[in-house]
Amino acid sequence: MTTFDPSVPPPATEWVLTLSCPDQPGIVHAVAGALAERGGNITESQQFGDPASGLFFMRVQVQADAGRAELEAALAPVVERFAMTWELDVVGRRRRTLVLVSKAPHCLVDLLYRERYQSMPIDVVGVVGNHRDLEEIADFYGKPFHHVPVTRDTKAQAEGRLRELVAELDVEVVVLARYMQILSDELCRDLSGQVINIHHSFLPSFKGARPYAQAYDRGVKLIGATSHYVTGDLDEGPIIEQDVERVDHSRAVTDLVAIGEDVERRTLARAVRWHAEHRVLLDGHRTVVFH
Amino acid sequence: MTTFDPSVPPPATEWVLTLSCPDQPGIVHAVAGALAERGGNITESQQFGDPASGLFFMRVQVQADAGRAELEAALAPVVERFAMTWELDVVGRRRRTLVLVSKAPHCLVDLLYRERYQSMPIDVVGVVGNHRDLEEIADFYGKPFHHVPVTRDTKAQAEGRLRELVAELDVEVVVLARYMQILSDELCRDLSGQVINIHHSFLPSFKGARPYAQAYDRGVKLIGATSHYVTGDLDEGPIIEQDVERVDHSRAVTDLVAIGEDVERRTLARAVRWHAEHRVLLDGHRTVVFH
Amino acid sequence: MTTFDPSVPPPATEWVLTLSCPDQPGIVHAVAGALAERGGNITESQQFGDPASGLFFMRVQVQADAGRAELEAALAPVVERFAMTWELDVVGRRRRTLVLVSKAPHCLVDLLYRERYQSMPIDVVGVVGNHRDLEEIADFYGKPFHHVPVTRDTKAQAEGRLRELVAELDVEVVVLARYMQILSDELCRDLSGQVINIHHSFLPSFKGARPYAQAYDRGVKLIGATSHYVTGDLDEGPIIEQDVERVDHSRAVTDLVAIGEDVERRTLARAVRWHAEHRVLLDGHRTVVFH
Amino acid sequence: MTTFDPSVPPPATEWVLTLSCPDQPGIVHAVAGALAERGGNITESQQFGDPASGLFFMRVQVQADAGRAELEAALAPVVERFAMTWELDVVGRRRRTLVLVSKAPHCLVDLLYRERYQSMPIDVVGVVGNHRDLEEIADFYGKPFHHVPVTRDTKAQAEGRLRELVAELDVEVVVLARYMQILSDELCRDLSGQVINIHHSFLPSFKGARPYAQAYDRGVKLIGATSHYVTGDLDEGPIIEQDVERVDHSRAVTDLVAIGEDVERRTLARAVRWHAEHRVLLDGHRTVVFH
Repeated sequence: MTTFDPSVPPPATEWVLTLSCPDQPGIVHAVAGALAERGGNITESQQFGDPASGLFFMRVQVQADAGRAELEAALAPVVERFAMTWELDVVGRRRRTLVLVSKAPHCLVDLLYRERYQSMPIDVVGVVGNHRDLEEIADFYGKPFHHVPVTRDTKAQAEGRLRELVAELDVEVVVLARYMQILSDELCRDLSGQVINIHHSFLPSFKGARPYAQAYDRGVKLIGATSHYVTGDLDEGPIIEQDVERVDHSRAVTDLVAIGEDVERRTLARAVRWHAEHRVLLDGHRTVVFH
Repeated sequence: MTTFDPSVPPPATEWVLTLSCPDQPGIVHAVAGALAERGGNITESQQFGDPASGLFFMRVQVQADAGRAELEAALAPVVERFAMTWELDVVGRRRRTLVLVSKAPHCLVDLLYRERYQSMPIDVVGVVGNHRDLEEIADFYGKPFHHVPVTRDTKAQAEGRLRELVAELDVEVVVLARYMQILSDELCRDLSGQVINIHHSFLPSFKGARPYAQAYDRGVKLIGATSHYVTGDLDEGPIIEQDVERVDHSRAVTDLVAIGEDVERRTLARAVRWHAEHRVLLDGHRTVVFH
Repeated sequence: MTTFDPSVPPPATEWVLTLSCPDQPGIVHAVAGALAERGGNITESQQFGDPASGLFFMRVQVQADAGRAELEAALAPVVERFAMTWELDVVGRRRRTLVLVSKAPHCLVDLLYRERYQSMPIDVVGVVGNHRDLEEIADFYGKPFHHVPVTRDTKAQAEGRLRELVAELDVEVVVLARYMQILSDELCRDLSGQVINIHHSFLPSFKGARPYAQAYDRGVKLIGATSHYVTGDLDEGPIIEQDVERVDHSRAVTDLVAIGEDVERRTLARAVRWHAEHRVLLDGHRTVVFH
Repeated sequence: MTTFDPSVPPPATEWVLTLSCPDQPGIVHAVAGALAERGGNITESQQFGDPASGLFFMRVQVQADAGRAELEAALAPVVERFAMTWELDVVGRRRRTLVLVSKAPHCLVDLLYRERYQSMPIDVVGVVGNHRDLEEIADFYGKPFHHVPVTRDTKAQAEGRLRELVAELDVEVVVLARYMQILSDELCRDLSGQVINIHHSFLPSFKGARPYAQAYDRGVKLIGATSHYVTGDLDEGPIIEQDVERVDHSRAVTDLVAIGEDVERRTLARAVRWHAEHRVLLDGHRTVVFH
């Protein structure tokens, strides 16, 4: 995109624009007009008007020769007119991601595998563990591992270290990949909409600790996992994705755990991918996910 | 089986035997021996020893020329030796079933369709409605419809009528096919293990009233249904079957209800079929389901 | 919409517009502009540009006080400029549907149930059977049943009768609900894009006759169904929807048939609903399905 | 099991016995009797009589203090009487496995992950690649990597090397984890029932090369994978497991490939696990899988 040859038109960049605003007539036309003005060709577009919240949501992919400044300038009057919350990014850009883990390897292994081999658009810039168990996995994938132990007494200090890492590494997304520590309300608030957790149950069933043991006791026939944004309200953040697997009476709790790991890793992987691709928009306590 | 021609051996009846007892060595051998003694040929058999409850469960299908009395005699010493709870039935016998409904037709339509066209082994001997809305469906399938209205004042009286119908019609299974009334603890106890309910959520999520509205508010990505035995403890009976369907942000509560109806009817149909086929055994608060 | 009270604005009609045309910049903007011009408020919109075929597809739902003539006038220049194939309908209008059956009841029962109780937007204006077996079901739902027997010698005559019914009843959609006759190439061509079939296998596996027997022989672990538009090329028309169910070694062919019926009825119901809601667009030999 | 302390009974070993034979009365009783004779306690047992093939299949897990020789001696008369094919193994023993790969990493990564972290009962004793691309993955998991390139001219030689490795490493199971070479009929025959392949389509759809491109062209709405035993008849071996994933019109062939990788790895993992746990029995061209 940076070399100049007047005889060859530069390939168009593909941009992704997401926005939300109070619903009213004319939004699609105005956005499409602003993009068309700069020669943009819409290749994919989805809209949703939520009658419950009165909000309108839109995700557009557009090919354009225009740069960011030009596009922003074209969109500025529309953004102002409709009081939009919006984001503009280049399609496929890898988002800078910090992964927090404890001892369970399945989610970390899967995310790093997908980054390297499946072009998931994340750039894992670091792995933080409150234990050292998974350091070798980070090493294999060439990722810096930061050991940040957490005890009752060092919790504040550990969170300070997390904040430093987020700042130093210019982190955009924090993934709790079976990180067995609870973040403080304050940190949740400061990183709101940027922290994705995987909970090992089909929420709101079996909130809290030992969900597979609870599931076993209740004799459920499907076990599940839930990936959600983290808010101060534990296990209550907006849900991004859920999935389940069938089980039967013959499964012990340890079996449920092992089967659940497969559900967890694929549920988390989808949530992280969709978030990284700007497919997830917040609608109050719910999410809009554009596939 | 009733005509006699000494030159043609009668076709063997296929029997299904289910049993549970405290686990210990030798059970399978003893049961198989008792059946072999009467010339039985085991065509299908499943066992499960639950390490948690210490109970052993078994379901056997056996072809035998022997009659019920002979088989029971052969099994009697085994039953006594192992302190078994057991049941013996002819495979495929249609179990006498009473269906209770209110206004929602989807489960009733599905059960009657499956009885008539899909050889589900039930014989619906009556339909009870606290409203008259579904009488025409019962009529079409040639089923007696009993209108038993329920108000706060007539609840006891209505339950009396239910008990009468269960007794008069020699009912073996009661199906609550979206029956919007709560049975009394006493009736639940008296019909324990014979009443199957469909709850319109993935229990234990969204217990209680208006589960689809709750599911909408929580923004879940899968909605489900749970079929369970009814106990006095509302929505807490042993689960027989659960299933889910994927939904997304664009679905209003009314959409969730419509989508949920499909999940409910197939979840209930499976539970009723498996119960009718003697595939469901009680293991405390859980069920063993032999497929 | 027809009574006039100057003090109360009439409720806006909701329209659905579907279109396809060669892809190029500016389509969304032009369509949105034409609709905005008549005061239309876009409530739902989806687009897809197929890089393989070079075609662009769009489905828009729009609330507008304008009548059909006005909207068509507003869209005319856009339609001409982009050489669009398009369709405009009122959201929720029940499409006039003719259902063709033989002896298997499951798909017919399900469609009529969904029309009556689940607001599937179809108006079944008649049921045609080459056997009389399902006449009672049509009767129960108050649908005229037409017995059109087919033998080798009367095939042409029977098709003539079908054409008459399609014309007389002003039929928009023909559903082959396990109709065991093959339509002639000519009829397929004349009704192209209007005839939906359910094939009892996961196409392209097990084309042709007795697919469940073929599936049994091959020992598959999932059985499926495929709903597709009918073309002259048997079992090769554009696929609208497919689904599967898990089976195991213990299932005989008759079990596969019974299990398959559930898959067939839900697969066909989805295809018919989506078609009736103008969600299915033809992209050569493939379909675009906007959910 | 080998130290002797007369006051502490040794913990019982858990054995798994699988067998098949022509069906006839008395098999279960005879087997259960032989095991009971040696103090065996049956903890899990499943039987299946196939009416089509006339064969009977059984899988029993039994806790017994007896050693292999004792159990075999007890079973010998039963085996002879019923002309059984049978196998006896210790539950949980890791079966010696050789994994063959080319360039695609997803199945190899998943199998090695499951061996190390999920107690899949395999012991991968070597990885063979016809390319070197995946050597680093084998290294990370501490597995010897054997580079056995294959060209048209060296095919026979390469197969010779495979045979050597199978012999030297005492291999029990060969897994073709997206190995893009076809084994010779002779090798298939010699390793019959020991080689498991993952085919990247829902067989019998899209046999042969480039199945995802075929699936794209046909416009299917679900893509699948099939794991099967390898026979000389390419893509026609007995199916062990199949699974599918939903796709829509917006997916390009490359997307189908990426989505398919998830289906492939979980389908292969299940097949390998079930084979390793002695849950898969051959019934002619079909498999019996005891869950």
